[in-house]
Amino acid sequence: MSIKVYLAGPEVFLRNAREQLDRKIELTKAAGLIPVSPGDFVIPPQPSKRQFGHAVSEIDEKMMDTADAIIANLTPYHGVSADVGTCYELGYMCAQGKLAYAYTNVAADMRTRAVAHYGGDVVTDATGRLRGRRDGLAVEDVDMADNLMMQGGVERRGGRMIIHDAAPEALYTDTTAFEACLRLLAERARS
Amino acid sequence: MSIKVYLAGPEVFLRNAREQLDRKIELTKAAGLIPVSPGDFVIPPQPSKRQFGHAVSEIDEKMMDTADAIIANLTPYHGVSADVGTCYELGYMCAQGKLAYAYTNVAADMRTRAVAHYGGDVVTDATGRLRGRRDGLAVEDVDMADNLMMQGGVERRGGRMIIHDAAPEALYTDTTAFEACLRLLAERARS
Repeated sequence: MSIKVYLAGPEVFLRNAREQLDRKIELTKAAGLIPVSPGDFVIPPQPSKRQFGHAVSEIDEKMMDTADAIIANLTPYHGVSADVGTCYELGYMCAQGKLAYAYTNVAADMRTRAVAHYGGDVVTDATGRLRGRRDGLAVEDVDMADNLMMQGGVERRGGRMIIHDAAPEALYTDTTAFEACLRLLAERARS
Repeated sequence: MSIKVYLAGPEVFLRNAREQLDRKIELTKAAGLIPVSPGDFVIPPQPSKRQFGHAVSEIDEKMMDTADAIIANLTPYHGVSADVGTCYELGYMCAQGKLAYAYTNVAADMRTRAVAHYGGDVVTDATGRLRGRRDGLAVEDVDMADNLMMQGGVERRGGRMIIHDAAPEALYTDTTAFEACLRLLAERARS
């Protein structure tokens, strides 16, 4: 059985988006899977920016509806955590009971990155919870790569979250972890 | 008909989480809706941090499965964009065709915040797209409050994204926009 896999991630924002998306598409085919990739449809001109945004949202959701699986690139983006659009998409696919795998190209876990976000200025509260000293926000500390809804959603469905330590200049282009997800998904599809 | 609404947002991370969750629960009841709130279940001790994370993920998903609607607090969290767990949850509910509303307590839109993230060091590429000069990542510019998957998912389903300009010290506690979502959802439930 051939598995259609939706390739979620912030690659669409890269300067070399088309090249990187094509690389992931080719790797997916080489793994014996069928790629479904955002950016593969040209959106016709729309009357407003907002309507353009709606058109992209609609196409991406329709692509996900046709897919059997998702591989989500959860590498931190514009902050401590993953690209939020990718997180929406992962939740969207998990709700449909699709196969879900994810990866990140940053080895430091959620706790480590959140503490770094506060420049180390964190305190332990009376219940033993770590918090940013100034804003009082809790640092999530459950031995996961990002917020527990993502890794929990993936692992509880039998998927895997692959952690890879990419070079800073290859943060969004290194495909080592992505290829590991492809292998796991292809193996599961065969079983 | 009574509508069950899942109250998604980063309030669980606040120092006064219980107080703020209770405030939102009371406001939801006052609007004639039934609140379903994360943090309402005490998770029994687990053998590992990771398993604790899985337990929370499972309970939150089960709560969403029983809910008819979601109101997502998309106020930026630990970076340019919303709390990623909340984004996962919004996608999870949209995939199930549930009613979806969202709000943010920051008035500056996605484009403005992303440009600020780069300290204004952005360039327009050959296709007219705005990019961070150093990392080359595109600034999303579709007249929305956050990544288009969130606001697109909400608005395309007939929901609304409410924008409110809260005082910095009330960023996660001001309920003005949340109450506006409650009114819209209650009105829709009656129609």
